[in-house]
Amino acid sequence: MIKVAIVGGSGYTGFELLRLLALHPDAKVTEVTSRQYKGKAVTEVFPSLTGFYDGLKFSDPEGFKSIEADIAFSALPHGASQAAVPALLESSRVIDLSADFRIHDLSVYEAWYGEHISPALLNEAVYGLPELRRKEIKGARLVANPGCYPTSAILALAPLLKEKLSDASSIIVDSKSGVSGAGRQAAIETSFVEVSPGFKAYKIGSHRHTPEIEQELGAIAGAGVSITFTPHLLPVSRGILSTVYANLSKGVSMKEVHSLYKAFYEKEPFVRVMDEGRFPDISQVRTSNYCDLGVFVDEKKRKAIIVSAIDNLVKGASGQAIQNMNIMAGLPETTGLIAPPVSI
Amino acid sequence: MIKVAIVGGSGYTGFELLRLLALHPDAKVTEVTSRQYKGKAVTEVFPSLTGFYDGLKFSDPEGFKSIEADIAFSALPHGASQAAVPALLESSRVIDLSADFRIHDLSVYEAWYGEHISPALLNEAVYGLPELRRKEIKGARLVANPGCYPTSAILALAPLLKEKLSDASSIIVDSKSGVSGAGRQAAIETSFVEVSPGFKAYKIGSHRHTPEIEQELGAIAGAGVSITFTPHLLPVSRGILSTVYANLSKGVSMKEVHSLYKAFYEKEPFVRVMDEGRFPDISQVRTSNYCDLGVFVDEKKRKAIIVSAIDNLVKGASGQAIQNMNIMAGLPETTGLIAPPVSI
Amino acid sequence: MIKVAIVGGSGYTGFELLRLLALHPDAKVTEVTSRQYKGKAVTEVFPSLTGFYDGLKFSDPEGFKSIEADIAFSALPHGASQAAVPALLESSRVIDLSADFRIHDLSVYEAWYGEHISPALLNEAVYGLPELRRKEIKGARLVANPGCYPTSAILALAPLLKEKLSDASSIIVDSKSGVSGAGRQAAIETSFVEVSPGFKAYKIGSHRHTPEIEQELGAIAGAGVSITFTPHLLPVSRGILSTVYANLSKGVSMKEVHSLYKAFYEKEPFVRVMDEGRFPDISQVRTSNYCDLGVFVDEKKRKAIIVSAIDNLVKGASGQAIQNMNIMAGLPETTGLIAPPVSI
Amino acid sequence: MIKVAIVGGSGYTGFELLRLLALHPDAKVTEVTSRQYKGKAVTEVFPSLTGFYDGLKFSDPEGFKSIEADIAFSALPHGASQAAVPALLESSRVIDLSADFRIHDLSVYEAWYGEHISPALLNEAVYGLPELRRKEIKGARLVANPGCYPTSAILALAPLLKEKLSDASSIIVDSKSGVSGAGRQAAIETSFVEVSPGFKAYKIGSHRHTPEIEQELGAIAGAGVSITFTPHLLPVSRGILSTVYANLSKGVSMKEVHSLYKAFYEKEPFVRVMDEGRFPDISQVRTSNYCDLGVFVDEKKRKAIIVSAIDNLVKGASGQAIQNMNIMAGLPETTGLIAPPVSI
Repeated sequence: MIKVAIVGGSGYTGFELLRLLALHPDAKVTEVTSRQYKGKAVTEVFPSLTGFYDGLKFSDPEGFKSIEADIAFSALPHGASQAAVPALLESSRVIDLSADFRIHDLSVYEAWYGEHISPALLNEAVYGLPELRRKEIKGARLVANPGCYPTSAILALAPLLKEKLSDASSIIVDSKSGVSGAGRQAAIETSFVEVSPGFKAYKIGSHRHTPEIEQELGAIAGAGVSITFTPHLLPVSRGILSTVYANLSKGVSMKEVHSLYKAFYEKEPFVRVMDEGRFPDISQVRTSNYCDLGVFVDEKKRKAIIVSAIDNLVKGASGQAIQNMNIMAGLPETTGLIAPPVSI
Repeated sequence: MIKVAIVGGSGYTGFELLRLLALHPDAKVTEVTSRQYKGKAVTEVFPSLTGFYDGLKFSDPEGFKSIEADIAFSALPHGASQAAVPALLESSRVIDLSADFRIHDLSVYEAWYGEHISPALLNEAVYGLPELRRKEIKGARLVANPGCYPTSAILALAPLLKEKLSDASSIIVDSKSGVSGAGRQAAIETSFVEVSPGFKAYKIGSHRHTPEIEQELGAIAGAGVSITFTPHLLPVSRGILSTVYANLSKGVSMKEVHSLYKAFYEKEPFVRVMDEGRFPDISQVRTSNYCDLGVFVDEKKRKAIIVSAIDNLVKGASGQAIQNMNIMAGLPETTGLIAPPVSI
Repeated sequence: MIKVAIVGGSGYTGFELLRLLALHPDAKVTEVTSRQYKGKAVTEVFPSLTGFYDGLKFSDPEGFKSIEADIAFSALPHGASQAAVPALLESSRVIDLSADFRIHDLSVYEAWYGEHISPALLNEAVYGLPELRRKEIKGARLVANPGCYPTSAILALAPLLKEKLSDASSIIVDSKSGVSGAGRQAAIETSFVEVSPGFKAYKIGSHRHTPEIEQELGAIAGAGVSITFTPHLLPVSRGILSTVYANLSKGVSMKEVHSLYKAFYEKEPFVRVMDEGRFPDISQVRTSNYCDLGVFVDEKKRKAIIVSAIDNLVKGASGQAIQNMNIMAGLPETTGLIAPPVSI
Repeated sequence: MIKVAIVGGSGYTGFELLRLLALHPDAKVTEVTSRQYKGKAVTEVFPSLTGFYDGLKFSDPEGFKSIEADIAFSALPHGASQAAVPALLESSRVIDLSADFRIHDLSVYEAWYGEHISPALLNEAVYGLPELRRKEIKGARLVANPGCYPTSAILALAPLLKEKLSDASSIIVDSKSGVSGAGRQAAIETSFVEVSPGFKAYKIGSHRHTPEIEQELGAIAGAGVSITFTPHLLPVSRGILSTVYANLSKGVSMKEVHSLYKAFYEKEPFVRVMDEGRFPDISQVRTSNYCDLGVFVDEKKRKAIIVSAIDNLVKGASGQAIQNMNIMAGLPETTGLIAPPVSI
């Protein structure tokens, strides 16, 4: 039985870790911290969990240095994780859900995020996208769990870039995310009244997930990749749909590209490449660890349009983190993660 | 042209006053205050109003003592209005959208709200429900604009109580309100993620609109009225639906009660009594100043079920406030308020 | 391994049976029928199930006479089940999710629904609410799975009526249901555009779940019960919240009534009585088989207000049906049904 | 007073015409037809309009040959309008909200839509986008009211193409539309339960609005334009947001492009170019005839990203149709159309 600690467990990724781990046969949450709710019962903050974590209380995060767990998930905000992770690593292997350890190049990190207080770990951290880095994850001491947008973009583009079928400088990633991506926070911008009739683009040309996507696509392509990334805010709780436009470097047919995707992800338990002519809907992956992919090729224009759908809180965060934990612990990768999406 | 000031104008009732007054032919907003946004352009905070209030900035509410307006709307929170209204009255007639001046009996006020710092005005203030107090409103210096729930409950019950057809001690008001009723605030409880899949009752047996409903129904009945009031939070932005249960004091038919309602509201421009067998939907009054009423009688059980629907921000707040302004100014009551509801 | 057939499996209750049974360790769906989709792959109609039912096709319901299953769920519409169930009973034990076998008294059935073509089975059918009829369910050949509204109302009222604490003729059940309760159908009334800004009462005084609630409450009370039942349509997909008003037959305190509920449901795995002062939200039971209950007593008025929340598709339909299957098969009642609600 | 007839008036564009014309000072709806609802009161089908069209009934569309109106709006579905318009033209000037007369080139029409039964009118019809064709609209006998997606795309791109700043063969239009764009229809695909948790792309590479956008952009550019157009379905009732990507044909700064847009639309009453760094939200144009535009330039990549927002039922359909009517009738173009958007 894996002893699990969750540091910063009262946000949405913390809630999802609790929700999913409640059914994990080989892991048990022994500690969960929260500055805001320290001392409160987990089920008081999250009544839906009544019956699953009775007796467990949020503990003071000041104490996380003394955490004794096999795996510590850090669900702290960006910036706060940098300070916490070195201490956590003294007793546990760590899966960090923040952006703090995803960028390997310190200068890139600093350009987008500012100063880093634990730069020595940037190189050691393994980018935890199992479909691409399963082997390194297995032995990692520190896994940087991918961002939600990057997961959707990288899985959509990996086959094309691996096969050098896409121009690397003109890719457009037009992404749309549900509101839970903004975190569990009190803000007028994410209130029901403001969000429910709305839809907008935000941080055009400046979203911090851009260098993360470029880093990982570059590694696949073996060359520099530069993307145009436009995130949007959807009036739903969960889900990211990315519509990705790539200029093909040679004439290939829809059928060929579709076959490439089918083959590339054939053995992946959580990537479902849809039949030709069918495209994903975020509702069809809701609450699950699946990434659904749809493939279209405009043969005349030599342009591929790949559409990917994930649940931002599951494959885009906590589900993927548990998938990483399973790999690190030598468990079957799907342990505790196989359940039909709740599409309605 | 009526010169209008709005004090505390950056909340949802302030926004609705601005939205509705933009089209009022005989009124002009000359000042709007906001502590939070002072100095900012109105259209920066509310981009939808671009083209309607260009040039107008939120002013410092500290200055409201010097406001020179014909009508000042106070859209301050409960408690804050008490302090502001006496000063406003020095230069303007005042329509207060808070609860501060709705209760006439100081001891009742104190039991539900605590201390009152301007108790002398409690008696002078006119409860601004035009359908019942049109004449007093006309000459009033201070109008206490009704609460949203009370508007829906009182209009649903007035005909029955006026005719002494309902038992006065067993009335149940089961109300459901959209989220904008909670105000424009940053709070996890009203965030999109928390609210959109939910529905709940809250403040059972203890909501502060209870004494307001009882006061006004008692005045109609000419006797004490005691209600059971249960508010619920609906995952919509706008709208209140109240399902009201009253035990009839004698055997009357559905047809008779329906005719009573038709007659009672025959000349009211903003109350639409639906045909027998039809019942209101909050979508059908959305954005408008209408109150739709549906009437049902269980003749065997001698029980009436009255269903009322309003837009909580319009007939339940800002629209009704403008209706009161029209009355006070001697204008046709419907000026600037006649527009079809935006039902979809 | 229990062999399961689902007759009429392409609606929402069919989908939920498939979703929940995908994870049941001791049951396997071997056949699912659909007139509309016969011959189509289950995963084509429900793409979210891709990976769970690959290879299974909807079969022609004309063939259900030859179904060989241990348990047949009939998810046919009301009326259609009457014709199908006798044939299904020839080879299987049957759990019927329609209303066709819930009413024991033929004359009551006829008054509310019209003619019944298999009246002989009305007496044999066991009303499948496990909390009240566990023993009879265990040996039943035909279980009539309760309606969604009745489940929420009966669980809310059972303790009060069992203890004869409530007046039996003045109970009011004010219920609010999500849209999936209307079934998976093409209709303007349930379209996104019409429903999303709306909320309304419907079938006031005439909803067919009324006699079902009265029958079961009467059985608990040992005397006739007559209720006032008002259903409403909520703009959410899943969930029923019932706000139930009961006049207490003697003076009892909030504390006493709360203790009674705690004791009554102490051993029930799927009923969660909330702490005093806390009340349920449909989001907190979403996708789960739980019924959450909140208790309030107005001691002065001698009135109890009980609030219950369920997921109409789970505890209100398919989850409860699987709970019944577990009981009939001698399995632990919670098999395959324990998972945290997806509250966001 | 303009006498107005609406043919096919029971869909959402019909409803919006009725809603908006209710407040038009110089127009009066004298006839509205509906095959489905003929003989029924308009206010029975649309209860929100109670008080505005009392007495008006849907008439049999078979009779539209005898319509005597100054302006006839055809809100019939695509295909049906072709048959109706020639007859309507015998007595009225016609504004057609369908796609039937938007394409001037018969061969292009046939390639995307199939046969046309009134091809002679294709050339005469004026494409009714006032910002581009105000003069031709004024004298037109038949106006083809633009599609919703095309309105959002063309207004976003017109300044760039007019100035020959954009490459004409690589434009990407990634559009997201609310559900009302699918019309008022009974369909599982647009039901609340299916739509509310979802978001998806549809008709990738094959949506019929593509040639309409290309025709109009080509006319502006004075050269052939070929676009990649991807529509998506948003879980909101109203609104289209288009995120448009254009490769700039020379190095221009954000400031220059922003100034160009400001100047281009300076005198347009319904186009609001936002300040630099601000981008539109569909909620901020909701229920109004405005098109909000946001401008971004990635100077390094020489790529412009233009974001446009409209209400698909107003500027994308009925509001624009009334704007066209005003122009045709010689009225101020904004008559009856100036009202703040209902952003919450």
